[in-house]
Amino acid sequence: MTGIQKATEKNLMVFSGRAHPALAEAVAAELGTDLVPTSAYDFANGEIYVRYEESVRGSDAFVIQSHATPLNEAIMEQLIMIDALKRASAKRITVVLPFYGYARQDKKHRGREPISARLMADLFKTAGADRLMAVDLHTAQIQGFFDGPVDHLMALPILSEYVAAKYGNEKLAVVSPDAGRIKVAEQWSERLGGAPLAFIHKTRDINRPNETVANRVVGEVEGRICVLVDDMIDTAGTITHAADALMEDGAAGVIIAATHAILSGPAVDRLKACQASEVIVTDTLPIADDKNFDQLTVLSIAPLISRAIQEVFEDGSVTSLFDGRA
Amino acid sequence: MTGIQKATEKNLMVFSGRAHPALAEAVAAELGTDLVPTSAYDFANGEIYVRYEESVRGSDAFVIQSHATPLNEAIMEQLIMIDALKRASAKRITVVLPFYGYARQDKKHRGREPISARLMADLFKTAGADRLMAVDLHTAQIQGFFDGPVDHLMALPILSEYVAAKYGNEKLAVVSPDAGRIKVAEQWSERLGGAPLAFIHKTRDINRPNETVANRVVGEVEGRICVLVDDMIDTAGTITHAADALMEDGAAGVIIAATHAILSGPAVDRLKACQASEVIVTDTLPIADDKNFDQLTVLSIAPLISRAIQEVFEDGSVTSLFDGRA
Amino acid sequence: MTGIQKATEKNLMVFSGRAHPALAEAVAAELGTDLVPTSAYDFANGEIYVRYEESVRGSDAFVIQSHATPLNEAIMEQLIMIDALKRASAKRITVVLPFYGYARQDKKHRGREPISARLMADLFKTAGADRLMAVDLHTAQIQGFFDGPVDHLMALPILSEYVAAKYGNEKLAVVSPDAGRIKVAEQWSERLGGAPLAFIHKTRDINRPNETVANRVVGEVEGRICVLVDDMIDTAGTITHAADALMEDGAAGVIIAATHAILSGPAVDRLKACQASEVIVTDTLPIADDKNFDQLTVLSIAPLISRAIQEVFEDGSVTSLFDGRA
Amino acid sequence: MTGIQKATEKNLMVFSGRAHPALAEAVAAELGTDLVPTSAYDFANGEIYVRYEESVRGSDAFVIQSHATPLNEAIMEQLIMIDALKRASAKRITVVLPFYGYARQDKKHRGREPISARLMADLFKTAGADRLMAVDLHTAQIQGFFDGPVDHLMALPILSEYVAAKYGNEKLAVVSPDAGRIKVAEQWSERLGGAPLAFIHKTRDINRPNETVANRVVGEVEGRICVLVDDMIDTAGTITHAADALMEDGAAGVIIAATHAILSGPAVDRLKACQASEVIVTDTLPIADDKNFDQLTVLSIAPLISRAIQEVFEDGSVTSLFDGRA
Amino acid sequence: MTGIQKATEKNLMVFSGRAHPALAEAVAAELGTDLVPTSAYDFANGEIYVRYEESVRGSDAFVIQSHATPLNEAIMEQLIMIDALKRASAKRITVVLPFYGYARQDKKHRGREPISARLMADLFKTAGADRLMAVDLHTAQIQGFFDGPVDHLMALPILSEYVAAKYGNEKLAVVSPDAGRIKVAEQWSERLGGAPLAFIHKTRDINRPNETVANRVVGEVEGRICVLVDDMIDTAGTITHAADALMEDGAAGVIIAATHAILSGPAVDRLKACQASEVIVTDTLPIADDKNFDQLTVLSIAPLISRAIQEVFEDGSVTSLFDGRA
Amino acid sequence: MTGIQKATEKNLMVFSGRAHPALAEAVAAELGTDLVPTSAYDFANGEIYVRYEESVRGSDAFVIQSHATPLNEAIMEQLIMIDALKRASAKRITVVLPFYGYARQDKKHRGREPISARLMADLFKTAGADRLMAVDLHTAQIQGFFDGPVDHLMALPILSEYVAAKYGNEKLAVVSPDAGRIKVAEQWSERLGGAPLAFIHKTRDINRPNETVANRVVGEVEGRICVLVDDMIDTAGTITHAADALMEDGAAGVIIAATHAILSGPAVDRLKACQASEVIVTDTLPIADDKNFDQLTVLSIAPLISRAIQEVFEDGSVTSLFDGRA
Repeated sequence: MTGIQKATEKNLMVFSGRAHPALAEAVAAELGTDLVPTSAYDFANGEIYVRYEESVRGSDAFVIQSHATPLNEAIMEQLIMIDALKRASAKRITVVLPFYGYARQDKKHRGREPISARLMADLFKTAGADRLMAVDLHTAQIQGFFDGPVDHLMALPILSEYVAAKYGNEKLAVVSPDAGRIKVAEQWSERLGGAPLAFIHKTRDINRPNETVANRVVGEVEGRICVLVDDMIDTAGTITHAADALMEDGAAGVIIAATHAILSGPAVDRLKACQASEVIVTDTLPIADDKNFDQLTVLSIAPLISRAIQEVFEDGSVTSLFDGRA
Repeated sequence: MTGIQKATEKNLMVFSGRAHPALAEAVAAELGTDLVPTSAYDFANGEIYVRYEESVRGSDAFVIQSHATPLNEAIMEQLIMIDALKRASAKRITVVLPFYGYARQDKKHRGREPISARLMADLFKTAGADRLMAVDLHTAQIQGFFDGPVDHLMALPILSEYVAAKYGNEKLAVVSPDAGRIKVAEQWSERLGGAPLAFIHKTRDINRPNETVANRVVGEVEGRICVLVDDMIDTAGTITHAADALMEDGAAGVIIAATHAILSGPAVDRLKACQASEVIVTDTLPIADDKNFDQLTVLSIAPLISRAIQEVFEDGSVTSLFDGRA
Repeated sequence: MTGIQKATEKNLMVFSGRAHPALAEAVAAELGTDLVPTSAYDFANGEIYVRYEESVRGSDAFVIQSHATPLNEAIMEQLIMIDALKRASAKRITVVLPFYGYARQDKKHRGREPISARLMADLFKTAGADRLMAVDLHTAQIQGFFDGPVDHLMALPILSEYVAAKYGNEKLAVVSPDAGRIKVAEQWSERLGGAPLAFIHKTRDINRPNETVANRVVGEVEGRICVLVDDMIDTAGTITHAADALMEDGAAGVIIAATHAILSGPAVDRLKACQASEVIVTDTLPIADDKNFDQLTVLSIAPLISRAIQEVFEDGSVTSLFDGRA
Repeated sequence: MTGIQKATEKNLMVFSGRAHPALAEAVAAELGTDLVPTSAYDFANGEIYVRYEESVRGSDAFVIQSHATPLNEAIMEQLIMIDALKRASAKRITVVLPFYGYARQDKKHRGREPISARLMADLFKTAGADRLMAVDLHTAQIQGFFDGPVDHLMALPILSEYVAAKYGNEKLAVVSPDAGRIKVAEQWSERLGGAPLAFIHKTRDINRPNETVANRVVGEVEGRICVLVDDMIDTAGTITHAADALMEDGAAGVIIAATHAILSGPAVDRLKACQASEVIVTDTLPIADDKNFDQLTVLSIAPLISRAIQEVFEDGSVTSLFDGRA
Repeated sequence: MTGIQKATEKNLMVFSGRAHPALAEAVAAELGTDLVPTSAYDFANGEIYVRYEESVRGSDAFVIQSHATPLNEAIMEQLIMIDALKRASAKRITVVLPFYGYARQDKKHRGREPISARLMADLFKTAGADRLMAVDLHTAQIQGFFDGPVDHLMALPILSEYVAAKYGNEKLAVVSPDAGRIKVAEQWSERLGGAPLAFIHKTRDINRPNETVANRVVGEVEGRICVLVDDMIDTAGTITHAADALMEDGAAGVIIAATHAILSGPAVDRLKACQASEVIVTDTLPIADDKNFDQLTVLSIAPLISRAIQEVFEDGSVTSLFDGRA
Repeated sequence: MTGIQKATEKNLMVFSGRAHPALAEAVAAELGTDLVPTSAYDFANGEIYVRYEESVRGSDAFVIQSHATPLNEAIMEQLIMIDALKRASAKRITVVLPFYGYARQDKKHRGREPISARLMADLFKTAGADRLMAVDLHTAQIQGFFDGPVDHLMALPILSEYVAAKYGNEKLAVVSPDAGRIKVAEQWSERLGGAPLAFIHKTRDINRPNETVANRVVGEVEGRICVLVDDMIDTAGTITHAADALMEDGAAGVIIAATHAILSGPAVDRLKACQASEVIVTDTLPIADDKNFDQLTVLSIAPLISRAIQEVFEDGSVTSLFDGRA
């Protein structure tokens, strides 16, 4: 046979944008490697410049960027990073999205709207992404927006193990802040030894649907520590109203648990002011020092992401990380 | 200027597969035209053959096929019809899907599953579809699976106007058969003069989440005629259990309303046996004579589809068909 | 160099749809492995569900499905299997088509027809196929319908070795059932020691082309055992008329050899009733027990497919399997 | 409604490359227009330059180029013309191929060959072609190589009308130069009042398939004027041998008819030397003065192409041009 | 013919993002129409929301957005607007880019850089753009980055007519601020009656290339009013140094002319402080009130863009807008 | 785990078209391997035929073809070679372009021109190219025309080392033949110990821009050996005029250095006749014996290309080949 033979090696390389470097560093450290040294800065008019400082040829590249505020900067930087990897002959490019921006615009609520969550998937594909990895997508259908493999990671085991360890001896209830998220609450209930479920029927009074919004608690919460669960906390209006409604209904206490701590605008003030005794989130998004507060507990998502990257790199199973549970 | 100038005309042509010709004929009749004469038959081994009997060059083609059982035949025939139109120089091809097959497989519920609803969108695109038109998709996110315009029609006005006309003087309640569809029930409630909402919490007893399924009614239904609403009736297990549970809880009566009457396997027997006094559906799917029964009312979806086609053809607004309401 | 290095391994995995599992099992057994455990069933309305029961990440996947009747089910199942593999991160997906459905619709015979054989190639590509492997395509041009590598396998060596072993001492002739397939007959002739060729001029009498069809034998067949060869036997009309015509022209006997035993509708009755003493086919398609009959000999295609898969997996040569002959 | 409304006009524009301008001019003249003025020349190293001298914005463009020798120049020039049209905002680009180059490489005859006929279709698509129009493709499957509409024109009516007018009173036979093209001969026979068919079995003696090639005439030709038909005449070896064989078999005369007069290398000498009394071709390819000879009759294909362009432009039917016949 | 015929109309609609609405309004006014009413705002975490307030179905849509700072917001908003138009069935989408962001990253200056200008072209294509229109691209090769028509407009006539009218009686010279832009200066010279050319050799002293940068004036400028020309003014370092160098070399005065007034960071202070008596720009980018200064003259680009849109809409010629000159 | 595991090997294979086999052989020899045996010839009408004589399955293929005259033949042959590799299951296809044809048509100089350099990139992609490798592209933006990795090699080190070794002790100047290429001259200057720069202002007299062209030398060249540098020598008009102008301005001597020796038409005569004492080029293009002349020095590009191929094959760094210099 003509030619030159050689055994094939693969090389896992981890890259980070500037949106949340601490998380990417933690992921790399868990994996036992370093982030690939990268130059990145903004030109005077806001154009982003990126360059890798060592060869990435043939690499199995994982590009971590969480879509933190300023969110469009974060997305554009990631797209540019992918383009640079593609042109520098990376072998495979996995886009790691601890928080996937625009996930809430996953359908046309009304005519003549965009479906921005699909657009994001297409933009990543166009730039050169072969695969996506994301944590707790707003709706699972978003997996179908990308034309290729999506590894969908769940923070539930991390959050629920913390709650079980700390509050496992209490009389608990699991509460969804609205009717649309009861299935997530059920998964929590299973992991908390069958704690009863409840939810807040927030849209309107069931007998007067056209009148003002109320927060009616459905289910038994009296005397229980309520674990109020959601996928993200943005301005925190819904969830803090829910917490207060639970206390009014006789709950013994409220703790809030959510994956993505966006914490926009009034969120921190609302959370501080509400009656929840603890707010448990992960670090899929960076939390600035001035957004920290006494009741806030931040659990690291890095071990989960690093284990998933390892499975992907080694052709193992990401599904197995959640087996027996979800 | 060199060349030959000519005013441009467009020509609306309506095509039908063999899955539900009565609906397509009704749509064409509403539009004031005929279906394009088409030869279609199966070869001995099941291969489908299609040929149009007149020129379709330059046409604005609407290919109507509902994904009735045998569903894979219906889908494949429609793909082949699209291919034939593309190769015969149709100018624009709109795929009309009164019922969109595989819509329930819109995400990976577990690892290593397909996302067949996305696959269907891609297959239509590949065959040559420029646009989709569909009635009451199982989840609205499916609009985002297609890379192009999707006109999403709602049967709600048709169904709710019938109910309002017949039961408007009764004391009504609107009931969702599970927690995930309360938002649809809310739209019903708005259209029925603010009738109170309820839903069936079918998954499990709220205090013992790991035990057997119960059908707990949440909301006030006593003494009311309950309008039990869903997007489709397949084997009718869930909805007939819900109907019976409502009666047990003191409802004055139950009527069932749903867009898509799949009516598979035991569905008809279950519906006949349950305590609902009327089952109201549309004809997005064909209903064979042996699937008809006394309590069944079938409303025609053809006027809605024909109006939408007209708007698309004339560059009008499909959104306007639902304005002021949804 | 930053990153984690690792030697690359590849993993051959064989998957089967439900159309012809016995063949896939035989292929896997020849390879010395098992089929990947797979859940597959139909929902009540005919929607197909598929899920792999173990990780397929990074696999070199071969998805075997023969397009047996119900053919559209078989094709759709295979498309869904490919989609599931793509989303589960298979590294390379080869679609194995022992019988390629719609191969006869490989051109527009008249205006406004589809070219379904091209459409199938595009559908497989869209679902995620990287490569095709097929046995005896109806026309070789179909290779050009797929945008990627196609391994085109020939059953000729298997069939002709059987005939040579059994009838090698007879005085043979090779006969094509129509003028369009003489080249295949020539290949047979070469493999049968230069047996003379003949063919059936079936379309019309050469002096009265507008009159009714006759089956004129061209070539010397008197006193010879005629090996009547074709690529497929569907309803068996043509081939059985040819067999009878040969006997009328003084043939000493007729045996029929074809790759694909579709055996639709009247095929079995016709074959039993005709004057051929043996009908030799391969098992590219399943042959139900009630389609078996005394004169039928079924040769296994599994060794050929498994050798080809092995060559593909090991970067060997599929062409070499047919060298020195075709 | 916001915006500015305007009736839409379309503008047919015809463009020609430099391979066969006389044909394009004839087509334009038939249509009643002129070719769009175009600058085209070669740079010193052979790079082709093209520019249109007037606006082509919004045009319905037909780009005529026959793939005459030097064939790769002709193809590349056409690709560049298409690119220029696309970038200059032509609305629709139809590639007109009186002779489609590389059509004979329509499959892999052996392993590791290209399928150049598919490649050509893809190159045209990539450059910007929306549609193809071609005359007498070598195999009809090539239509399936292009992902879009293909108008396949047939020269048969033109050629056969000429023959019928001139030789209609003679005793004719229609002869195919090899077994693979009998179906074309049948169409000729139909158009010549049911003239009997014959063909040349050129590959090998039917009783000694491994020996040297002979040209055996199959069918009755004695005393008849034989119309020897093919799709193209390249080096003319096959067809002139066939002509001589027919005369040896007692034919009263031979005339040759073919669509594409490639006339490479020894073709003209062979045709002059053979016993055919007339060679009838079309001008799908240019015929240089030094390739003309006494027996050659060239019929114009321009009327057919112009009628087809007209039908395409006016959304008429190209199929209708051949109805009742083919 | 089956179907419903109708004359085709087209409808020009103009849309604007939030980056530079004044320009878009001016363009619409020149065209004699209004901007399509559009809702656009940012969610708390920076996600952009867009919705059109009237039907855009079938429209010939022009989406104007200049990539002003914050530039990534502007680009993302435009992508989202395009997605919404595509999904709302606009017929044709032209992206109008008075200033094209990332145009300077049009090649890899070093290994492992992105080519962001190509990436932007691909992102627009993916979102749904059919065509681009841009003013004075940084390099003309960027036209080749987009797979489709690009209308490249030049501000030169607008700028040079202003200069000619005001300074036409002076003794002028045209000066390029670096060697790479002399060709633009030549076009200026032609339009200013053959004014002599000069340029600033800014990189390094021609005799000591490795030493510090100098600004050597090449060409005769003494006693002349120098028109210093460039495509954009970003931080204004280069151009203000050039202006001062010209005065040092004896110029009678300096005026600066450029298309794109980015005016980042220290630009305004530098321009105010330098010896140029007038700075002439267009309004392709918005100029905030606090960036205005006495010497600044802003010419409107709106008439040029509106004329070009009109030509595109009416299938006229954009090239003709620059004929006889460039 | 089900399946068959195997360590992955990769196999470097080098292929050559017929345009410049000597270069490809030299590259293969440097790599320590042979060219893959390939059949390639032209049919009588100019159609190119290609077939590989051994299996290329799974190979890491490098297809070397320089776009020598007849240039369109060379390009088409390379496209066909790529198609054959793709269909024969090569794993990765790198197109090696020592000279990239049509590179000068990298933008629309005027309306209604093609952008042929982009078209070439798209044609290679369509045929199946995964990557490009090219030497000294006419403009660096062409890298952005290809949707994938481009390895851009520079001949500068090879050419400049030769000049430094031979003329290093002379008093040198580096001269660009026109204003647009000064940056290349600067790189030369750096490599020649800071030799002063000059350039020829060839377009027109700076004081009378509308008059006839002159060749004004800008910079100090008196008494120096001028190294006149360019990327290609086509008809050699510009560069030989420049050489003579330098001598007129008092240069002590002129040597010409360029990467690509196209040497079309009058080039050799002009070079022989001009006052340059040596013309140094590389062998990116073949130089026929009758194009050789006394002053011509040809340096081999093969070592550079082979080192780059090695780096690509071994996932090394191509950038590193130019580090510390460019």
